Amino acid sequence: MSEPLLYLDEIVPGMTFGSPSVTVTEEEIVTFAAQYDPQVFHLNDERARDTFFGRLVASGWNTAALTMRLLVGSAFRPAGGIVGAGFEEFRWPQSVLPGDTLRLDITALETIPSRSAPKRGIVKLRIKTLNQRDEPVQVMVAKLVMQRRTQP
Amino acid sequence: MSEPLLYLDEIVPGMTFGSPSVTVTEEEIVTFAAQYDPQVFHLNDERARDTFFGRLVASGWNTAALTMRLLVGSAFRPAGGIVGAGFEEFRWPQSVLPGDTLRLDITALETIPSRSAPKRGIVKLRIKTLNQRDEPVQVMVAKLVMQRRTQP
Repeated sequence: MSEPLLYLDEIVPGMTFGSPSVTVTEEEIVTFAAQYDPQVFHLNDERARDTFFGRLVASGWNTAALTMRLLVGSAFRPAGGIVGAGFEEFRWPQSVLPGDTLRLDITALETIPSRSAPKRGIVKLRIKTLNQRDEPVQVMVAKLVMQRRTQP
Repeated sequence: MSEPLLYLDEIVPGMTFGSPSVTVTEEEIVTFAAQYDPQVFHLNDERARDTFFGRLVASGWNTAALTMRLLVGSAFRPAGGIVGAGFEEFRWPQSVLPGDTLRLDITALETIPSRSAPKRGIVKLRIKTLNQRDEPVQVMVAKLVMQRRTQP
């Protein structure tokens, strides 16, 4: 049975949410890069040796896309879905390599009811994408639109 | 003939760079969403009617991935490739719809030579993704690693 859907009113700063995990294959990295980030260090391990990274690494946008997939499958299940409004922080402290296993560490930071739209508001979440050594490979502070419980 | 590669020393704040354009098909939106952002408003136009968006819209991460592809094909061609370090601003002011045509408006804001690594530094770029009505659908201020020209 799936967990109940969340409304803004139920979010308390400090709440945390877990996610499933995903292992990133070389095929995933190369397929994503061929379509969206065709640079040599995302396409070919041998040719990547003379580059900034020194080996094949995932595109940061591949990490971001996989993070979204993990977020959709996570315990953070807002009514109305996950709707991003923007970010206050977004960085990639470390590269994702073939064979890495990623999962999310999600913490609610703040809720901001809308002044103009009483039925919704913004939640700020810190979403850390961690590898199998618990090292962050992506850190975001995301502002997401959430519904409020309508008054009875 | 391709244009010469850029080094940090050649970037002057205010410089602008154009990009090719891409028209976003419904197939692109649905295929990306099925893999990375499987929510109903990114998957099915009819079922999207009762959601926040009211119709099928592209995942923001799809817009971000397409922006990266346009950036790789743009006139901003740094030696060593496009290597992201993080973002100071990142937001999606408007949805991308099937049939929209996107292009980039890229402006150099600042260059920051590294204190510890004399051969490189950071360039701050404002990268606006515009639709066919010149409305921004994504605005980023990105910090990218760039090589410096080595002294003779």
